Amino acid sequence: MGRHKEYLDKLSHFFQIRNLLLRQALAECLGTLILVMFGCGAVAQLVLSGGSHGMFLTVNFAFGFAATLGILVCGQVSGGHLNPAVTFALCLLGRERWRKFPTYFLFQTIGAFFGSAIIFGMYYDALWDFPGAFNVTGPKATAGIFATYPGKHLTIVNGFFDQIIGTAALIVCILAIVDPHNNSVPPGLEAFTVGFVVLVIGLSMGFNSGYAVNPARDLGPRIFTAMAGWGVEVFTARNGWFLVPVFAPFIGTIIGVMIYQLMVGFHVEGEARDRNRKSAEEENVRLTNVSTNNSTNNTKEVH
Amino acid sequence: MGRHKEYLDKLSHFFQIRNLLLRQALAECLGTLILVMFGCGAVAQLVLSGGSHGMFLTVNFAFGFAATLGILVCGQVSGGHLNPAVTFALCLLGRERWRKFPTYFLFQTIGAFFGSAIIFGMYYDALWDFPGAFNVTGPKATAGIFATYPGKHLTIVNGFFDQIIGTAALIVCILAIVDPHNNSVPPGLEAFTVGFVVLVIGLSMGFNSGYAVNPARDLGPRIFTAMAGWGVEVFTARNGWFLVPVFAPFIGTIIGVMIYQLMVGFHVEGEARDRNRKSAEEENVRLTNVSTNNSTNNTKEVH
Amino acid sequence: MGRHKEYLDKLSHFFQIRNLLLRQALAECLGTLILVMFGCGAVAQLVLSGGSHGMFLTVNFAFGFAATLGILVCGQVSGGHLNPAVTFALCLLGRERWRKFPTYFLFQTIGAFFGSAIIFGMYYDALWDFPGAFNVTGPKATAGIFATYPGKHLTIVNGFFDQIIGTAALIVCILAIVDPHNNSVPPGLEAFTVGFVVLVIGLSMGFNSGYAVNPARDLGPRIFTAMAGWGVEVFTARNGWFLVPVFAPFIGTIIGVMIYQLMVGFHVEGEARDRNRKSAEEENVRLTNVSTNNSTNNTKEVH
Amino acid sequence: MGRHKEYLDKLSHFFQIRNLLLRQALAECLGTLILVMFGCGAVAQLVLSGGSHGMFLTVNFAFGFAATLGILVCGQVSGGHLNPAVTFALCLLGRERWRKFPTYFLFQTIGAFFGSAIIFGMYYDALWDFPGAFNVTGPKATAGIFATYPGKHLTIVNGFFDQIIGTAALIVCILAIVDPHNNSVPPGLEAFTVGFVVLVIGLSMGFNSGYAVNPARDLGPRIFTAMAGWGVEVFTARNGWFLVPVFAPFIGTIIGVMIYQLMVGFHVEGEARDRNRKSAEEENVRLTNVSTNNSTNNTKEVH
Repeated sequence: MGRHKEYLDKLSHFFQIRNLLLRQALAECLGTLILVMFGCGAVAQLVLSGGSHGMFLTVNFAFGFAATLGILVCGQVSGGHLNPAVTFALCLLGRERWRKFPTYFLFQTIGAFFGSAIIFGMYYDALWDFPGAFNVTGPKATAGIFATYPGKHLTIVNGFFDQIIGTAALIVCILAIVDPHNNSVPPGLEAFTVGFVVLVIGLSMGFNSGYAVNPARDLGPRIFTAMAGWGVEVFTARNGWFLVPVFAPFIGTIIGVMIYQLMVGFHVEGEARDRNRKSAEEENVRLTNVSTNNSTNNTKEVH
Repeated sequence: MGRHKEYLDKLSHFFQIRNLLLRQALAECLGTLILVMFGCGAVAQLVLSGGSHGMFLTVNFAFGFAATLGILVCGQVSGGHLNPAVTFALCLLGRERWRKFPTYFLFQTIGAFFGSAIIFGMYYDALWDFPGAFNVTGPKATAGIFATYPGKHLTIVNGFFDQIIGTAALIVCILAIVDPHNNSVPPGLEAFTVGFVVLVIGLSMGFNSGYAVNPARDLGPRIFTAMAGWGVEVFTARNGWFLVPVFAPFIGTIIGVMIYQLMVGFHVEGEARDRNRKSAEEENVRLTNVSTNNSTNNTKEVH
Repeated sequence: MGRHKEYLDKLSHFFQIRNLLLRQALAECLGTLILVMFGCGAVAQLVLSGGSHGMFLTVNFAFGFAATLGILVCGQVSGGHLNPAVTFALCLLGRERWRKFPTYFLFQTIGAFFGSAIIFGMYYDALWDFPGAFNVTGPKATAGIFATYPGKHLTIVNGFFDQIIGTAALIVCILAIVDPHNNSVPPGLEAFTVGFVVLVIGLSMGFNSGYAVNPARDLGPRIFTAMAGWGVEVFTARNGWFLVPVFAPFIGTIIGVMIYQLMVGFHVEGEARDRNRKSAEEENVRLTNVSTNNSTNNTKEVH
Repeated sequence: MGRHKEYLDKLSHFFQIRNLLLRQALAECLGTLILVMFGCGAVAQLVLSGGSHGMFLTVNFAFGFAATLGILVCGQVSGGHLNPAVTFALCLLGRERWRKFPTYFLFQTIGAFFGSAIIFGMYYDALWDFPGAFNVTGPKATAGIFATYPGKHLTIVNGFFDQIIGTAALIVCILAIVDPHNNSVPPGLEAFTVGFVVLVIGLSMGFNSGYAVNPARDLGPRIFTAMAGWGVEVFTARNGWFLVPVFAPFIGTIIGVMIYQLMVGFHVEGEARDRNRKSAEEENVRLTNVSTNNSTNNTKEVH
């Protein structure tokens, strides 16, 4: 036992990374990997089993709780964004530094890439066994397991709007959950609550194009599918749809931040500011009083 | 970074609303918007996908967790009622002032209006693609996405009774959750518990007419559908059914408050009162004793 | 406002019941009413909608979360048993007095009776609209909405065994949750955890005869159906099946208590006892030391 | 009452086991029994009811929440592993002694054996009533109720890979949950979070071979089926598939431990170490200062 512990300690020293941003980026990468692995895994199970081992609800549950687990794995280290749109929102509000944004975006995309690669490996046999293996479009298409594609009824304009609304809804809820002045969720339950947000978005906004609302979650797996055999069609399908889940979420983020701040955020923040100012003034008054009385009841102040 | 923060601070000062009631009304509006957006979104997904992307259970989950999220967003500011019946119950019990009731009702209805408008925009293409677009009645009706309509088997009397029971059940559970003398739920988990209440009501009381149990949730979207293309039929359908989910919930609220108070509330309240009185008497006795001994062991009382 | 509060205070004084057992019995009655109302409501929704508004999973969710809500409503007052088998288990372990058992059993049954009556009223139209209204047996039977009946494959012996196992599993889990020496669940979350237990029992033990595992939940609604139009057949069906869910759960309770106590309970209890004895001995040693040193470092003991 | 308590006390003394490892092994046995009883019970309900009382989602819920309940029952005593792979992971990290591993493995397997035996007894009638009773392969096979068998599309290599990935995912999430330096989950909620992990793995990794990811959960019920009437075919089916869920999970454990430690674990651990060292140094500095000042402000240190 003693030697075992010693050996572990040496390993721990050897592999410890001291650069904070790199550590955070790695954690974010693992978190997004978990999100995409479980989420896309559930889509794969639904599609490849032909509905016997899944339904749209199971995909919603999987993405929701996968978000929870991804945040739990990396939240302590990196904040558990798992989504460039969330990083963007926190940068907009001045709660994260802007230079984090590209690093996080990159590593989140890498994590999503490997998450889909794992699912590809796991369901390799099932995929080859499936009639429409490696089709990007058509009723038996399998590209939708990894990246999102719009429904037949959806125009590109409505699809853009869909991604904006979905992301705005996500951001409003997440801001309410993490707002330090609106302490709505008990500490430690943020990850679970964000999971519920993702679940609910899937339950109500998933029909149009599969609710990416996350540029990294969509781009990483799409690049993987392009390399793994579906080819360049994953980018050209539906007139370059792939650009929508990459860009629309950021616009949705801006709108979501504005709505939350205008309707709730600025006011709770202002109230906290007012309260602080008031108590600071009272403190001042009290201190003045105290200093005048100081000589008389000095001993009372000790405890 | 510095300039960014400064700019945010200025914005925050500029937009901060100091009127408490207006701030609460705005928060309540956003909360109800979230409730209706996610809830009606799930109905839209179920109806428009023809069942491939949803089922009645997903609607129940969506309304339940949407209530949770709505409360989380606005609860800190406005209490998170999201429902005029809840406001009414708290006014009846003297825990909110009566003048809040009309303001909340108005802004909750406005929130519900915009919530359904967002879903209308999001599923605009899907709606036009759907065979029964803009039908109020019939097997392919879409008006039921937004407001509630009674099932074919339901008479107006039974429907009225249905809304009364549903709201009474909701109110009994919510009163148990928020009763200060019956501390059943750990602080911070009220929103989740209310979500479970809404979920369970949907699971067991949703077949008759879709469990509105909330005048604002039903009236706001109904007004929206009247304006968006379904026409005045949304009010005239089924002999003015729309009045049932507006008025029956308030009767249900009165019954729910009575049942809870008679069977649990008055007794836990009375017990707390008895306990307080008793400890006050003991305190009196103690203080008398102390005052007699006061000269001797004065220093002990300091700590 | 002032007069409103005064009036409420008067009401509160007037209706306050000071007899503890009666107060507990009333609370238990309301809790069981909620359990049966939501639970049987979900079965009604499943049966009467012909599967469009429910499935077996929704019934499981409804019973599980209904148990949670029932416990939340009455737990502070009466402990939230909702089930004579739970009361029986706690009496067996000496944590409740035996004279509570018949009172609780009676009021739980009354609550279950009224819970099913509410559902009967709520779905009155739907019931008359249903082909097999008021049938006790056959493919379109509706008696199963309220009380449980065995599946066609089930013999009475296996059914008895089924109820014993189900109740034993319930009791083992509940004892682990409420065991004061096995503090497994954070305070305040017991109700939610019991809800999960009921949910899981429904998911895995519901096929044979609908997992009553609760004499009151089965007997109350059965008496109601006998009175409401299904007739005496609810008692005579399947050779007096109704006796199984009334008696088997108590045998299951005894077995569950034995299994939990032998495999976990006695040991954690004994460990706590050993620890207390040890610390008491150490305390003794310490006190002896202190008393010898008492004259020297007296002042230290003050704080 | 007095005599009842006395009698219980005597029983408690008589049955108390003082050997810690045996107590832990018994608790682990009961926990795994609960996991398998509820989990396999849900599979039995799904298979034997022909889909009317279950679907793959209900199996996922049952296994997830059964894991939660199993951990709640035994966690306080034994840590609530329920899975030799988890015990193995904690041994690898030096958090449990290696000699626990074989004992836990044995008792977990025994618990799983009896868990499946209970389900066999419970659904005995239903099993005999089922067309394919006691078939190991074929469309109406029932052996899959207890142990896992690969899907038709799955080769043994992909199956091995499937079990490795599934277990690695499980271990990464569990390590994040129980890592003392990555305090991601509020104390007391670990069991619920592990339940979500098991649920999500079932939602996304269950199609290939039914996500055993637990040697004891698979081996115990398989031995039971061999004895209960399915015969030795349960071991020979699909070229000795039964070895895969026994051995692959341990390889997955090693990979999971490596991934978590390299990407998150070593860094949070190292950070904690750095912090401790720093504060120890500061403490040293402070102590030096104090010792120099010691004669002057001695009294201050008392409080």
